[in-house]
Amino acid sequence: MLTLYDYLESGNGYKCRLLLAQLGLPFRLVLKDILKGETRTEEFLRLNPNGRIPVLVLEDGRALAESGAILCYLAEGTPFLPEDRFARAQALQWIFFEQYSHEPNIAVARFWRHFVWAERKDDPYWQRALDERMQRGHQALEVMQRHLTGHDFFAAGRYSIADIALYAYTHVADEGGFDLAAYPAVRAWLDRVADQPGHVLITQADFS
Amino acid sequence: MLTLYDYLESGNGYKCRLLLAQLGLPFRLVLKDILKGETRTEEFLRLNPNGRIPVLVLEDGRALAESGAILCYLAEGTPFLPEDRFARAQALQWIFFEQYSHEPNIAVARFWRHFVWAERKDDPYWQRALDERMQRGHQALEVMQRHLTGHDFFAAGRYSIADIALYAYTHVADEGGFDLAAYPAVRAWLDRVADQPGHVLITQADFS
Repeated sequence: MLTLYDYLESGNGYKCRLLLAQLGLPFRLVLKDILKGETRTEEFLRLNPNGRIPVLVLEDGRALAESGAILCYLAEGTPFLPEDRFARAQALQWIFFEQYSHEPNIAVARFWRHFVWAERKDDPYWQRALDERMQRGHQALEVMQRHLTGHDFFAAGRYSIADIALYAYTHVADEGGFDLAAYPAVRAWLDRVADQPGHVLITQADFS
Repeated sequence: MLTLYDYLESGNGYKCRLLLAQLGLPFRLVLKDILKGETRTEEFLRLNPNGRIPVLVLEDGRALAESGAILCYLAEGTPFLPEDRFARAQALQWIFFEQYSHEPNIAVARFWRHFVWAERKDDPYWQRALDERMQRGHQALEVMQRHLTGHDFFAAGRYSIADIALYAYTHVADEGGFDLAAYPAVRAWLDRVADQPGHVLITQADFS
């Protein structure tokens, strides 16, 4: 059986959980507490030298890290990854957009506010750093709003791993302080994604 | 003919130029000055709503953004993208690692020092922000050093787009203030990449 090393609050892990659930693939969920350094042990670094969840471990023990790579691996040969060469590259374009321009701002702002803000809030450096992430997060939401004005989904005209990748942190953007009121096309798309068959919540931990 | 919208100093653009050259694919290079906002015009945003180079435009006018997606698109069906499903996912793992954990630190430190440091160097906020990027950049180099101790390349045991993705900013890391002396396996790998047939320099602008 597949094993997913994960942290339940993580949107990056949630992407993998959501796809595994929608593919109907059984898997064992092993939770690691990233706040306690459980992904920086020598044992974990043998799975992922970058010391981060999620990591997917195959039955034969081979390990794969990076949510975008895990999504592509799992989706291959399924309707979640377009067959057409250009459409597949478009899906990848949006998954890379998420990791470079969206997650480092929207997910990081959420992480800071959730876990470390009490100790940082009086430091002008962190206040300015958060302001910067908020500004860039809104830029990413504007890019999504622009694309979704005229498109129902991000690639190939249908639900794919590009939507899963972008849904994970967008649907909890409010926890990072982002108000989605100014992005109606994004909100309508969030509803379309949540309506897909087999959808699960980010908090779901039982996949047995 | 393919068209690549690019900026010559960009390692992200260089990844595409290097692969195109090694594939022997002719292309038209259209340089955009990112410092003058030339990628934020309405015309450019129609190619990439995220307003960034590189963008690859196919003969039929369809546009693809994000260096990682362009690499995968161009490499498909060639020896630069492994055929085996798991090996292909491993290549993707390292391309995502580069975009999330490497480029935002090593490339951004280089960009700041090259282009904006004169106006930022007396601001304690930017000094601390640079220190943080430097620290994370060294963490990324340590991850590479760890992997390359025992592996000649990043995926599938041979030169692939994973190596191209990581080479682009690692080989100019010194311009960001990173000393590679502590990473001998990384330096040996840089030499192996530079020795590949058809290698071109980041400064090469003439591909006719």
